[in-house]
Amino acid sequence: MSSKLQIYGDSRSGNCLKVRWTAEHLGFDYDWIETDVLSGTTHTEEFLKLNPSGQVPAVILPDGRTLSQSNAIIVYLAGLSDSALLPVDLYECAKVNEWLFWEQYTHEPMIAVRRFQKAFLKRPDEEIDPQLMAKGRRALGQMELALHGRDYFVGDAITVADIALVAYTRVAHEGGFDLDEFPNIRAWIARVERDLAIESAVPAGEAA
Amino acid sequence: MSSKLQIYGDSRSGNCLKVRWTAEHLGFDYDWIETDVLSGTTHTEEFLKLNPSGQVPAVILPDGRTLSQSNAIIVYLAGLSDSALLPVDLYECAKVNEWLFWEQYTHEPMIAVRRFQKAFLKRPDEEIDPQLMAKGRRALGQMELALHGRDYFVGDAITVADIALVAYTRVAHEGGFDLDEFPNIRAWIARVERDLAIESAVPAGEAA
Repeated sequence: MSSKLQIYGDSRSGNCLKVRWTAEHLGFDYDWIETDVLSGTTHTEEFLKLNPSGQVPAVILPDGRTLSQSNAIIVYLAGLSDSALLPVDLYECAKVNEWLFWEQYTHEPMIAVRRFQKAFLKRPDEEIDPQLMAKGRRALGQMELALHGRDYFVGDAITVADIALVAYTRVAHEGGFDLDEFPNIRAWIARVERDLAIESAVPAGEAA
Repeated sequence: MSSKLQIYGDSRSGNCLKVRWTAEHLGFDYDWIETDVLSGTTHTEEFLKLNPSGQVPAVILPDGRTLSQSNAIIVYLAGLSDSALLPVDLYECAKVNEWLFWEQYTHEPMIAVRRFQKAFLKRPDEEIDPQLMAKGRRALGQMELALHGRDYFVGDAITVADIALVAYTRVAHEGGFDLDEFPNIRAWIARVERDLAIESAVPAGEAA
């Protein structure tokens, strides 16, 4: 058993990158175990012992215990390290949670799923459920409004809410979404990418 | 402004009932503002000020601040009251979060959505996406395995994870799911309903 945090993830997946960025930002020592979601690796008997949902990201903690669900993992890592990524104030923490649940219910199933179908499965636009574009644009519209006059989603500094939301927003163009419609979002992406010291994914042009 | 917690919810919605049950269990003084999701109430300008997502549940706290997303609300209420519904141990708390995110991503969009289409929109089975039944049964199968030898999803007593998961599981039969296939789940539903002092919704036979 490794004494380091073991992160099983696919580098093309925003959900997985959330965990890597959070670990990096907090200075955790970790191993990244590249796990291709398209090859069936996550449905082997061995992987299902780690995460019965057959999904990445999943982590093995230094003591051997496991944890899955991207947003649960980043909240846990932030809590372990007592960092400002998770506000101490109970209400601010609740607002972070509100955005985390919103991201998984209203944002990811539209924006990440459309990107996956378009950029990874190479599905032509006419074969993609038009609801994904309509609902995805509505989700981006809600983020644009929420960012009006604000630098981050909760409080005055980056939290795990920003990390969770930026993961698929910064590659939304790969799903056919036009971020030029959303200037607050574009400025916020640049801010969060700078805070996380990651390369800019916007403007578009590269398929993953 | 009321000095009580104001809960906006539709009594037929499991997401809304989670909040009512948690408030009841913790002994909060609250007003329930019945909000019909089928009548467009949640898309009025006034409601969108309370929750820009246009969804119930949404709450107004005694100090006038707002919060939405069912699982964010129940975690917040549990945290306010320092109750055992939210474990103190950081890893156990992360496991609660893991189930909460799993519920909103993998369970609710299948089981609650199929129930809504079948029992509320009265859609015939052949007009309902067959993936909802297939993926919903897979989610129930995962719960059944997780409950093997356990009384609750995390630790030895009821947590907000059980409250979140029971909300739509106990009415899954209204969506056409056969809970007789899942004896661990049936026993757990009865246990959680007893803990919450709510009437049994299983066995089937009643449409909401």
